[in-house]
Amino acid sequence: MLPLQLHLTLPPWVGEVADTRKRYLSDEERVGLAIELARQNVRTGQGGPFGAAVFHEDGRLVAAGINRVVPQTCSVAHAEMMAYMLAQQRLASFRLNAGGGRFILATSAQPCCQCYGATVWAGIDELLIGARAEDVESLTTFDEGPLPADWVAQLERRGIAVRRDILRAEARSVLAEYGQAGAHY
Amino acid sequence: MLPLQLHLTLPPWVGEVADTRKRYLSDEERVGLAIELARQNVRTGQGGPFGAAVFHEDGRLVAAGINRVVPQTCSVAHAEMMAYMLAQQRLASFRLNAGGGRFILATSAQPCCQCYGATVWAGIDELLIGARAEDVESLTTFDEGPLPADWVAQLERRGIAVRRDILRAEARSVLAEYGQAGAHY
Repeated sequence: MLPLQLHLTLPPWVGEVADTRKRYLSDEERVGLAIELARQNVRTGQGGPFGAAVFHEDGRLVAAGINRVVPQTCSVAHAEMMAYMLAQQRLASFRLNAGGGRFILATSAQPCCQCYGATVWAGIDELLIGARAEDVESLTTFDEGPLPADWVAQLERRGIAVRRDILRAEARSVLAEYGQAGAHY
Repeated sequence: MLPLQLHLTLPPWVGEVADTRKRYLSDEERVGLAIELARQNVRTGQGGPFGAAVFHEDGRLVAAGINRVVPQTCSVAHAEMMAYMLAQQRLASFRLNAGGGRFILATSAQPCCQCYGATVWAGIDELLIGARAEDVESLTTFDEGPLPADWVAQLERRGIAVRRDILRAEARSVLAEYGQAGAHY
């Protein structure tokens, strides 16, 4: 039988870490949540050290994501992908900003080649990044994959502002915790 | 309430077009199925003119995919992404070739930036492509997005053989049918 159905989930603890009543107003609060999701994901021992969240410009959290590759046997289930898909489902829009309003993705580490490409189509206006690709590759065994040489400029040409190194030291500490555990999930 | 669950589906007609009992042995049979899925997706009026399928090297079909962006309000739900996720779920492996055996993705058109990145992680050994990016961009309003300048070489460095222009004229005809209808789904 050909598989026709796919069910992806986040564990319930994500709803305890991420607060839908709070207004996340600064870049640091937004990336801070992504890093906290990454940290908790490492500590539960179920997924890679990555977290992400989609916010409306007014600071409301729309959706969160963590790396779910291993528990869901799904190479697509990176933190950013989960956050995009869940946010689009919640807003019933395949382009987050199609209905007006500005949307922001905050991620604990620079998107890999897959999440980079997904960012082009997701309908966000700002991309906020914690750790750099070189942090991911030096502190863990993960590979970021091939990106266009001018990847930031390509996003900015499409109206997506990119800000990096937000809480970078804290973001690096989660990658280091994962790397030191010799984890491979 | 934070969304924690995501359900993605393919319509039942995909199981009628794609035959799990058949052995798809040649590149043309494999890309031919991807093109037929794309054509039927256009004719049902529900999705973009793209189809894809994952095969085992022995010719068995593992999973199929069509573009489901609009009906599922999900920018991630491109044909290649659906095929990868469904195949990995079926094999219970987040890297298709991790357990041995070679796996092939056939796609009706060159992967966009998102599906390109996903291809790096999915665990395939061969990527078979029908239409070129320039066909997609000249015959429809779709944009392929930013790719590394040496995108083919980057895949081949990672052990993924790339073959292009397989049934290209037939693949172009589906894009043209979609483009001429002035469709935007």
